Amino acid sequence: MKTVDLLIMNGIVVTMEGTGCGIIPDGAVAIQGNDIVAVGPTADVLKEYDGHRVFNAKNKVVMPGLIDCHAHSCDAIARGTAQDISGWMYKGIWPVLSCSDVEGKKIGSMVHLAESVLGGTTTICDMVYDSDTIVENHVQLGVRGFVSEMIHSMPPDVYKADENAPIEHDASIGNRRFQTGRKMVEQYNGYDNGRITCMLGPQAINMCSLELMDEIYGYARKNNVGITIHVSQGDRENVQIERRFHKRAIPLLDEKGYLGPDVLCVHLTCATPEEIATVVKSGSPMVLCSTSLAIIGGEIPPASEFLAAGGLVALGTDQAPGNNRNNMFSEMKMSALLNKCKHKQGTFFPAWQVLRMATVDAARALRKEKEIGSLRPGKKADVIIVDMQYPALTPILLSPIRNIIPNLVYSANGSEVETVIINGKVVVDDHQLTTIDLKQTIADANAAAQRFCGRLEHFDGLDQLPLAKWTREGLY
Amino acid sequence: MKTVDLLIMNGIVVTMEGTGCGIIPDGAVAIQGNDIVAVGPTADVLKEYDGHRVFNAKNKVVMPGLIDCHAHSCDAIARGTAQDISGWMYKGIWPVLSCSDVEGKKIGSMVHLAESVLGGTTTICDMVYDSDTIVENHVQLGVRGFVSEMIHSMPPDVYKADENAPIEHDASIGNRRFQTGRKMVEQYNGYDNGRITCMLGPQAINMCSLELMDEIYGYARKNNVGITIHVSQGDRENVQIERRFHKRAIPLLDEKGYLGPDVLCVHLTCATPEEIATVVKSGSPMVLCSTSLAIIGGEIPPASEFLAAGGLVALGTDQAPGNNRNNMFSEMKMSALLNKCKHKQGTFFPAWQVLRMATVDAARALRKEKEIGSLRPGKKADVIIVDMQYPALTPILLSPIRNIIPNLVYSANGSEVETVIINGKVVVDDHQLTTIDLKQTIADANAAAQRFCGRLEHFDGLDQLPLAKWTREGLY
Repeated sequence: MKTVDLLIMNGIVVTMEGTGCGIIPDGAVAIQGNDIVAVGPTADVLKEYDGHRVFNAKNKVVMPGLIDCHAHSCDAIARGTAQDISGWMYKGIWPVLSCSDVEGKKIGSMVHLAESVLGGTTTICDMVYDSDTIVENHVQLGVRGFVSEMIHSMPPDVYKADENAPIEHDASIGNRRFQTGRKMVEQYNGYDNGRITCMLGPQAINMCSLELMDEIYGYARKNNVGITIHVSQGDRENVQIERRFHKRAIPLLDEKGYLGPDVLCVHLTCATPEEIATVVKSGSPMVLCSTSLAIIGGEIPPASEFLAAGGLVALGTDQAPGNNRNNMFSEMKMSALLNKCKHKQGTFFPAWQVLRMATVDAARALRKEKEIGSLRPGKKADVIIVDMQYPALTPILLSPIRNIIPNLVYSANGSEVETVIINGKVVVDDHQLTTIDLKQTIADANAAAQRFCGRLEHFDGLDQLPLAKWTREGLY
Repeated sequence: MKTVDLLIMNGIVVTMEGTGCGIIPDGAVAIQGNDIVAVGPTADVLKEYDGHRVFNAKNKVVMPGLIDCHAHSCDAIARGTAQDISGWMYKGIWPVLSCSDVEGKKIGSMVHLAESVLGGTTTICDMVYDSDTIVENHVQLGVRGFVSEMIHSMPPDVYKADENAPIEHDASIGNRRFQTGRKMVEQYNGYDNGRITCMLGPQAINMCSLELMDEIYGYARKNNVGITIHVSQGDRENVQIERRFHKRAIPLLDEKGYLGPDVLCVHLTCATPEEIATVVKSGSPMVLCSTSLAIIGGEIPPASEFLAAGGLVALGTDQAPGNNRNNMFSEMKMSALLNKCKHKQGTFFPAWQVLRMATVDAARALRKEKEIGSLRPGKKADVIIVDMQYPALTPILLSPIRNIIPNLVYSANGSEVETVIINGKVVVDDHQLTTIDLKQTIADANAAAQRFCGRLEHFDGLDQLPLAKWTREGLY
């Protein structure tokens, strides 16, 4: 008998091993240090293991933590300021965010990350400005972070330009952001026994000069650093690239060697079937941000087409202002429903498949399938416990129909997550974060928001912001 | 100074009065007996009123309770048993529900209603079998119920037939259900100072004989009882009606006088533009069940078209097995996003509009706009308090952009609802139901589910149920 740090028993264990969801109806998980050391039927595991701390997961689901493959946590300070409009990027979020400061971004980021983790997300692929500062949030909160500096060479007032005009690049801006990204990589990559992984995030091929892109890719590939990039995220991107290079974005990315298994391609909203084939062939995974794209512009990206072409799809919540949640339970449901509607078939994106997109498939997209994404001895202990004793998760049926996976995907909203273990550490205990004072964090964010509002009041583009107009008119 | 029963102060009061959302940034609501007696800025209300119980709503939203205009609470026992398939009704939910019993339906119904109320829904339009039994749940829980007997004259094994074949009606079944409905009306209509309103619910024009429809409408109109009916809920309905009557469903409903302001038309999924015009002209409101239709068959009903034709749209959550939530916050977000995607425009179904569909517009649809749907002196006290001190609702911005309404619609999931007052009574206090023992209710539902599973094991159609197959295969 070995006494491990954490022992979870009597749970409905959703391992995500095998081709489906790999459920063990009465299962246990043993955790020692950062790692899972045993997974199996409770009776079997208890023969070999005892725990310093034991979780009784009766009527609860034990499952891998969810993986959010695309987020911009630093935008959360502007939650709820840019929806329901057209021209979200140039007319909505960019002008609004021009009024935020680093302190506001940092505290907003912590609020975003706290929401995610409380809702069962254990890994967040976070693409942010000032990553050398923001990464401190991931470190402190205890989340598994894949953090990248979002790099572009755009002037600060780019939102005032015609969105179809090729962007005038400013090399000094690009260089500064690239430097910040490298600094973050050098300082934090591999931190806390591999809990923090640093990546680089060229914002999009129209937002960086090709010289900057070459520098980023050169550094990343020399140092085995992953890349995440927005690809074909709107007609705008293709129009700008065509005007400058006489080809569309994806053919240019392909030609320049900017795709591959080390490159997470985010959105692909406007990708043609040929372009999807190009991306799939390169080995780049697709990150599907269903809620964000739906709220921003009513778009449903071609994820089913990407899957049909043999590609790998993971899910992301994107930014708070234009989702506006960062909750992977919500994201799974939204992805399933939007894709059913796109094809007018209830059979599209079944619950088991979207759950894989948020766990094992996401781990493969991050090239970390040996470490995270499922419950298996030898993997990192990123484990959540979901209490099923809520009305929306009742009843529990186990046989001849097991409703656990449909209910997790279509009924859970994340508030049922009771325990979150990341890298073997209990980060959420009985629904409470153990690593930060959430109440204080929320108070600090609201205080920062007052400063943000103060700058918005004096913003010279205030009259053009639709939500400011609707607020004056009493709609909002 | 008058001392009222309940006084809520210092809140962000969303009155839903006027043409937008009618926000009072620092407001108060005074409640005496069943009624709202004052709404206004906190300073003004406190000059006149004190409260036996005072709620400090600082950093909280005070708003009208949400109105769910279509639900089948008695189906909740089968939550999670019929998604991700084609032929949901005939091949999924009907065969599964044939294995449920009245006890299972009743306890399932209570779980459904509990979820709704805990999530801020104060009024539920519930169309159920055995309504004379199920209505006891509404009475006990304390919700404002618009309860109707779901009436059809279909044989119990109707799901074995070809779904395009006109249904062979069995008059004895129709008569029995109609009798149950009348009994419920006579016993409960107006119960508890008007908290319970009884309606009648012919299930659909293809599921009742025209003789039965005439009897139902005759009784309802003579007794000023409202009607709710599924209309054009699938191609199947129109095919069946055309085969029997050589016209489509809506023209037949119109010709027979089965539409009108007293008739809530649910779904309208397959309604043509001409048929939409017919329904709008009749004065019937449309109930949009976005999540349900999306999950069941990937459909987005023509609500924007109904609005454009001048019609009135309210929202409904429909049944648990095929939503699978009964949460109006979730329903508002889903309705907004699906309609944005239908039209590929972020501008469709803005937050303020879907919030109206779940409050003031829903009250109009139920012909109770003088009693519920907004916060105004003289209306019934159906009021909820939403705690905004959650990460997903942070930050609170009040000026120059107020993000309260977008955050309520796009970020809240209902778990933030702290207090629910219905008809002046505190039904949810600090997130807990005051009227039932929820833990026991969930335990009872899980026990009933065991019996349900036992009958499913012996069901002669078990081999044909897709989810049973997927369970055996380990997908679920």
